[in-house]
Amino acid sequence: MGLLGASLGMAIRHGRLAQRVTGVGRAGSRSVEIARERGAIDEASTDLAAAARTADLVVLCAPVRQFPAAMRTLAPALRPGTIVTDVGSTKAQVMQWALELLPAHVHFIGSHPMAGSEKSGPEAARRDLYDKAVCMMTAPWQSGTGSAPSAEQRAAFERVEKLWQAVGMRIMKMPADVHDRWVATISHLPHALASTLASVAGREPEMLDAAAGGFMDTSRLASGDVDMWTDIFLTNRAVVADVLGEFQKELAAFKQAVAAGNEEAIRESLTSAKSVRDAFIARRVALGMSVKGGGDTEK
Amino acid sequence: MGLLGASLGMAIRHGRLAQRVTGVGRAGSRSVEIARERGAIDEASTDLAAAARTADLVVLCAPVRQFPAAMRTLAPALRPGTIVTDVGSTKAQVMQWALELLPAHVHFIGSHPMAGSEKSGPEAARRDLYDKAVCMMTAPWQSGTGSAPSAEQRAAFERVEKLWQAVGMRIMKMPADVHDRWVATISHLPHALASTLASVAGREPEMLDAAAGGFMDTSRLASGDVDMWTDIFLTNRAVVADVLGEFQKELAAFKQAVAAGNEEAIRESLTSAKSVRDAFIARRVALGMSVKGGGDTEK
Repeated sequence: MGLLGASLGMAIRHGRLAQRVTGVGRAGSRSVEIARERGAIDEASTDLAAAARTADLVVLCAPVRQFPAAMRTLAPALRPGTIVTDVGSTKAQVMQWALELLPAHVHFIGSHPMAGSEKSGPEAARRDLYDKAVCMMTAPWQSGTGSAPSAEQRAAFERVEKLWQAVGMRIMKMPADVHDRWVATISHLPHALASTLASVAGREPEMLDAAAGGFMDTSRLASGDVDMWTDIFLTNRAVVADVLGEFQKELAAFKQAVAAGNEEAIRESLTSAKSVRDAFIARRVALGMSVKGGGDTEK
Repeated sequence: MGLLGASLGMAIRHGRLAQRVTGVGRAGSRSVEIARERGAIDEASTDLAAAARTADLVVLCAPVRQFPAAMRTLAPALRPGTIVTDVGSTKAQVMQWALELLPAHVHFIGSHPMAGSEKSGPEAARRDLYDKAVCMMTAPWQSGTGSAPSAEQRAAFERVEKLWQAVGMRIMKMPADVHDRWVATISHLPHALASTLASVAGREPEMLDAAAGGFMDTSRLASGDVDMWTDIFLTNRAVVADVLGEFQKELAAFKQAVAAGNEEAIRESLTSAKSVRDAFIARRVALGMSVKGGGDTEK
């Protein structure tokens, strides 16, 4: 019952997409209570197995590295035909865990809704968090596990797909390894850059008094949840390291152009980057997606 | 008469801070006409020398590398005691040009209002662009040129300072070399990162369809004006190269931690960056400054 789980609960309840939403949290944790107070769930539970026993659909909204423990708890409790999905930010590792830890009579469908905030917790949840954003989905049969999907598996996939569509999302389907490479570039790399930028600037804190919107936006992701991002980097580490290597090469070339005062190379680099960025924004506008900056709230 | 010049004209006219605002642009350029249509200036001119001849205050709002040509044109036209300032993003080079090219009987005060947008041109101007932002100011006597300021020089500095304060800015005063190092870190480095990020992501454009707010904000600066940024990198190149080198070291250490799956190092790095970023936002809130993200507009 963090930001994603509570927001999903709100969207499901607002759209009357389920008869009952049960939020599960650790015993003693306040988050499930907050989610209930905010209208994100119908009932709260601290017993994952008991809550899952009667569920048609289970959505794992915990940090990715808690999935194996959750799957082990779920495995004996789930009824045949139960659908399990998730909101985890990496997919190859998650699909592998599902294959190993969940019984063959349930359907695991990988989901990664590209929605979030540098804010976390059910306090920050909102029912339109998923609206006009992309959900990347991976099915076991895309991940090279061999067997073609049964009709029942396809139906399970479609049911999860329809849920995300009902809360406003655009679906992109792809194999887990393609997903992980893409998010390493468009999500994990930006986070690493924002975080490293904040670290470098933090060496002389007084200069931050002069920083403006550019620094604020470029570093925004550095304010994200540390536990979640530690998990993400750990569960996608080889791909992230590769992508960081590509970035390092490109940055070294730019630094070289600046150090040498090579006007043509600087201009060419900025021009080509601007055309990528402008095309990205134009495409989002064409798709009716938000182009508003993330922003921060007063903390 | 770009974004900064037209926005300043709007703010000055809105606040009745000057009797008359003359906007100067190149012959044949539409921008001065647009600025006039938008109420940013009282009158338009294509003759810098003629416009400056009767001015009390001249504000250079062109890309930095056009300053030498502008200063050569201004030099014979300016009356004794005229105050000249600028909105340029680097300062050591600008102060040096002013010292060499402007007559001793005018007062050059360096200004760098930390306000802007990835949008450019007078079309994007707004009268509150400078409100609640920082203006960094440098005086010739801070730059180690030797002589102590006269009373007239101090008065000129104060007059420019009062102008920026009147349009809503908070003033920070510092030597030009300190300014250039700070902006290399809080402004030029973020721009280089945004631009390099967009270039790397642009190698496989279809993945951008899945990109969300994190990529959008981290890459926002890449949509900035290419001419202006080429100038900035060229006029601050040694300092930018140094700062890029510092960033490279920090990023290499993070990549190493990720590649090795070193949870403790990843967590420590993210935690320390988050504390810098969160403190930066808290400080802005305490100072009454905006923490809203920049955002993009439909283009």
